[in-house]
Amino acid sequence: MPAVLIATLFLITPQLALAAPDAETAFILNSLSFLMHGFLVMIMAAGFCLLEAGLVRTKNVTVQCTKNIGLFAIATLTYWLVGYNLMYQDVTSFMGSLGLWSAEDPAVVDGVFIEGNSYSVGSDWFFQMLFVGKVASIVSGAVAERIKLPAFLIFSAIFTALVYPIQGAWSWGGGFLAQAGFVDFAGSTIVHSVGGWAALTGVIILGARKGKYPASGGVKPMPGSNLPMATIGTFLLWFGWFGFNGGSQLAMDSAANIIAISTIYNNSTLAASAGAVLALVLTKALYRKIDLTMTLNGALGGLVAITAEPLSPTPMLAVLIGSVGAALVVITVPLLDKMKIDDVVGAVPVHLVAGIWGTFAVLFSNADATFTGQLLGVVSVGAFVIVCSTIIWYGLKYSIGLRAEAEDEYDGLDLSECGLEAYPEFSSRA
Amino acid sequence: MPAVLIATLFLITPQLALAAPDAETAFILNSLSFLMHGFLVMIMAAGFCLLEAGLVRTKNVTVQCTKNIGLFAIATLTYWLVGYNLMYQDVTSFMGSLGLWSAEDPAVVDGVFIEGNSYSVGSDWFFQMLFVGKVASIVSGAVAERIKLPAFLIFSAIFTALVYPIQGAWSWGGGFLAQAGFVDFAGSTIVHSVGGWAALTGVIILGARKGKYPASGGVKPMPGSNLPMATIGTFLLWFGWFGFNGGSQLAMDSAANIIAISTIYNNSTLAASAGAVLALVLTKALYRKIDLTMTLNGALGGLVAITAEPLSPTPMLAVLIGSVGAALVVITVPLLDKMKIDDVVGAVPVHLVAGIWGTFAVLFSNADATFTGQLLGVVSVGAFVIVCSTIIWYGLKYSIGLRAEAEDEYDGLDLSECGLEAYPEFSSRA
Amino acid sequence: MPAVLIATLFLITPQLALAAPDAETAFILNSLSFLMHGFLVMIMAAGFCLLEAGLVRTKNVTVQCTKNIGLFAIATLTYWLVGYNLMYQDVTSFMGSLGLWSAEDPAVVDGVFIEGNSYSVGSDWFFQMLFVGKVASIVSGAVAERIKLPAFLIFSAIFTALVYPIQGAWSWGGGFLAQAGFVDFAGSTIVHSVGGWAALTGVIILGARKGKYPASGGVKPMPGSNLPMATIGTFLLWFGWFGFNGGSQLAMDSAANIIAISTIYNNSTLAASAGAVLALVLTKALYRKIDLTMTLNGALGGLVAITAEPLSPTPMLAVLIGSVGAALVVITVPLLDKMKIDDVVGAVPVHLVAGIWGTFAVLFSNADATFTGQLLGVVSVGAFVIVCSTIIWYGLKYSIGLRAEAEDEYDGLDLSECGLEAYPEFSSRA
Repeated sequence: MPAVLIATLFLITPQLALAAPDAETAFILNSLSFLMHGFLVMIMAAGFCLLEAGLVRTKNVTVQCTKNIGLFAIATLTYWLVGYNLMYQDVTSFMGSLGLWSAEDPAVVDGVFIEGNSYSVGSDWFFQMLFVGKVASIVSGAVAERIKLPAFLIFSAIFTALVYPIQGAWSWGGGFLAQAGFVDFAGSTIVHSVGGWAALTGVIILGARKGKYPASGGVKPMPGSNLPMATIGTFLLWFGWFGFNGGSQLAMDSAANIIAISTIYNNSTLAASAGAVLALVLTKALYRKIDLTMTLNGALGGLVAITAEPLSPTPMLAVLIGSVGAALVVITVPLLDKMKIDDVVGAVPVHLVAGIWGTFAVLFSNADATFTGQLLGVVSVGAFVIVCSTIIWYGLKYSIGLRAEAEDEYDGLDLSECGLEAYPEFSSRA
Repeated sequence: MPAVLIATLFLITPQLALAAPDAETAFILNSLSFLMHGFLVMIMAAGFCLLEAGLVRTKNVTVQCTKNIGLFAIATLTYWLVGYNLMYQDVTSFMGSLGLWSAEDPAVVDGVFIEGNSYSVGSDWFFQMLFVGKVASIVSGAVAERIKLPAFLIFSAIFTALVYPIQGAWSWGGGFLAQAGFVDFAGSTIVHSVGGWAALTGVIILGARKGKYPASGGVKPMPGSNLPMATIGTFLLWFGWFGFNGGSQLAMDSAANIIAISTIYNNSTLAASAGAVLALVLTKALYRKIDLTMTLNGALGGLVAITAEPLSPTPMLAVLIGSVGAALVVITVPLLDKMKIDDVVGAVPVHLVAGIWGTFAVLFSNADATFTGQLLGVVSVGAFVIVCSTIIWYGLKYSIGLRAEAEDEYDGLDLSECGLEAYPEFSSRA
Repeated sequence: MPAVLIATLFLITPQLALAAPDAETAFILNSLSFLMHGFLVMIMAAGFCLLEAGLVRTKNVTVQCTKNIGLFAIATLTYWLVGYNLMYQDVTSFMGSLGLWSAEDPAVVDGVFIEGNSYSVGSDWFFQMLFVGKVASIVSGAVAERIKLPAFLIFSAIFTALVYPIQGAWSWGGGFLAQAGFVDFAGSTIVHSVGGWAALTGVIILGARKGKYPASGGVKPMPGSNLPMATIGTFLLWFGWFGFNGGSQLAMDSAANIIAISTIYNNSTLAASAGAVLALVLTKALYRKIDLTMTLNGALGGLVAITAEPLSPTPMLAVLIGSVGAALVVITVPLLDKMKIDDVVGAVPVHLVAGIWGTFAVLFSNADATFTGQLLGVVSVGAFVIVCSTIIWYGLKYSIGLRAEAEDEYDGLDLSECGLEAYPEFSSRA
């Protein structure tokens, strides 16, 4: 028997003994993970729309729906036009290249699979593209009820085309934050705090809704018009979060990867559940009533907090991270009101405050993360987004105008911006 | 050529000829089935919330939403704290062990896949954990509009921590019912009738809503406040049921298993469709109007009925099982009203009556089931849940109180329990 | 070493070098694609229900929900009873055979996988069956607010049992259109225009709603009662469309196929996004307000247009195809009003006009398509559906009656057909 043949046999035998997926099956499973988790992330767009439409007053619901479908469509197009390449193509320390995303896939040539490719580039683009819309959705709710619709849509276009992708290139694109050891698994900072900072600058520059903080002091409640809609929106966000965090494992081609995705699903659900229960119990204790909207935001705060590291925590740690995230939401919501910062849906507490907490909470379980690295990430991303958002908001303010006319705000933006009432037959008491 | 080498070759050759998935690919596919079907089951939480929020009156909608997000979060935590181990860990005839679920996965050690493991234990936990919430959701709708919110949430916590897992250990955990040959594929008895019995004891102990059965006789209609919401809830439940029944095949690693899942999807949809059409036609015949809520409950009754055995029936038998399930719903709903048992959403007809029917319908197609075995399962689970629920309901009644004050019930629980109206701007005629 | 052994080794080695999925893994992945994409298509039923329930007036919402759950259940049953076999079993040029779909799967015999089978026939049936309901859903919205409920349901039964499957046999079943080279990937013509033609004949035969086109001229607006519901319906349709178009690749067992599915997802989303943005910008330019319902229909028009060929276009072409689809919607909606054709939800512009456009747009990227082939498909399917629908509509008109009594139409069909108000507590201004 020739030596080469024996060698071949030895090569074959262990391969069969390992019994791992072949390269093309691995390619299919990795791409399937991007697609399946991607369509889950897509439904978060519907979740945000319902949450926000449920938390604004009747007279602004049509505009809120228009913003959500509009920003989602715009974000898709800008990410294709410039965003993806800025974030992932030829990234230097600070950004990638300008230009259209190329849809070409090198993994199959003349119908033959080329080994060494581990996933369809189209499936990855699909997944990444759906993240972009989330960032603009976060802003959309905070600035509700007084922003001009075209101004918001233009903000979304610029923000998703340039701001999100450039800071994304720093970490996920392999830029200077990645090199500095910044760890953010699925985006507590890179997605959620980015939306949160843009929301915070927006609500400050816009100012509060008329009458929200009366001269006589106190805070005028402006309750959401449709709480079951806000609730189902929260359920859909939770549902989509399995895609958001689970897909961020970026692979499903091995037992280790599918175990990781399982852990991520479980930790995400435990953090969300802990957040909801904590907010429920805390509001009952503080106010003697269980506050539904706070419970919803508690679940979301738990989800945002676990997003930076949903893989390495034990279940117990996931519960703690989610609980603290929700506690911060319950504390920050009235605090913002005291500072007369009018964030209609609680986007700043949920996405910014819990997002920062989650970014530092990585340190409890992931030995690769350092305090300096996490701090550098939070600060540099925060500074960049604050500066860019401020420039865009002011640019809009002094060009087409940012804030609706006082009369239109009083009558509701639905009539002035869209000419359509959301519920034309349900008479309003407000 | 050494004999051992030849033996190795013969070992290799048939393996390649069979062309079956390798052990790690099988592991990935089985775990993927748990995760994918698990996230479908998760959306049933949103489905129940919408169904119930749509079927109660405006003044109780906020509480209904709070119950649904609250119970889901609580069930997740209790199943992690004690439920999973009670149900699946070291099960003797009657129960497993107390203690936290351990998230450790033995399938990968030092990055190497260990053969003999067929799925990620985390993926299985995720799937099982999502079942628990369903049980409490079933109760939530029946006892609506007069139960105190904290009492309901405490009931949910105890019920999901102890009652559901212990009876689950008897069958799915390998306890005495499994040994006695009781067959319940995805839980017509183990999930649905368990929720149904708890709902029935609850509504009897609570008593009917004030004014539902006037002293002058008859039944006062208290129509649901938002029927499109109830409809979309039903669609979401139907959607999630593919996960509920399909995932209960517990494997997706072979042609036989994926064929089984396909059959389960088809039988589930045929049973649901037959249930909806039967209820639609029957209410038209009986009342000269098509009753939408009965049609929705007919679809759900069909789904509950097929759940005990969605695999072995022919399509024709699935249609029959679903039709009878729906017919039982159409018959039982007015019967309960005659007995002055006030089940707000029809949970008892749908989940208990159709669930018992489905458990016995297993006998038509599955030769492994015996009448004695099925009867033993239905009766022992029923007796256990009735006793436990009664104890918990009375324990709550004589401690923190179970039923809302008459005045709060009249004004709606939203104000007394949550302090937030669900639709503050839609003026009410009620 | 025996020659036969060496031969065996050479046989093994290249197989391992190719590293493609084995036959059974391929079978599982192909079937999984049908099941996963199938459940996405299922949720489109909920999407249509929400879209339509949101766009009709309060007094007709219960009927609209009943139609949507009813038609979905009916379509499932008719497709099992006759539809599938007519469409796919022993198809001659013009139709298949009559009879029940047989659920038997030849791929596993005595527990052993039989090579040569590439997917579970049950998974394929599941996917195909879910397409049928879509066709009836399209009709449901157009004829809203004045059609008798039983007449609509009987129309749906006949249409899904006979008309859709027979024309489907011509192309997807391998009949004369397939032989003539007609190309329609996921059904711009075969599904969407079929629903659109049935809708168009329906609304013409029914006539407009009372008062829609006053004798004094002009068009009376009859705004939808719940725009957030219409918006979430659109999001769910978009979500489900990944299943509709992605599953139509019919395989997921190779790198080439998963790349194709990725491309389909991306092109579908780009076309929908471009459609939404175009409608948004166009209505702002034309009417100085952004029209939300037109934006929703623009996204849907983009999706319908890309459905005939979501695979071969470049992203840029997908954007163009979607934009033109949406532009046609924006143009056609007022045009129909001018012709006094009263299509309540815009089904004709979205599904018929954009569907025809999409069918011809195949010519821009798919070299297999010819103008003659596409024209033949559009015309022959159109002629057949127009004739069949007209016969059924008139048959119903002169038997049980098609149009509701004027008084019932004035009061809303909910009371006369279902006896249940959709929102009994929200007082109506209409």
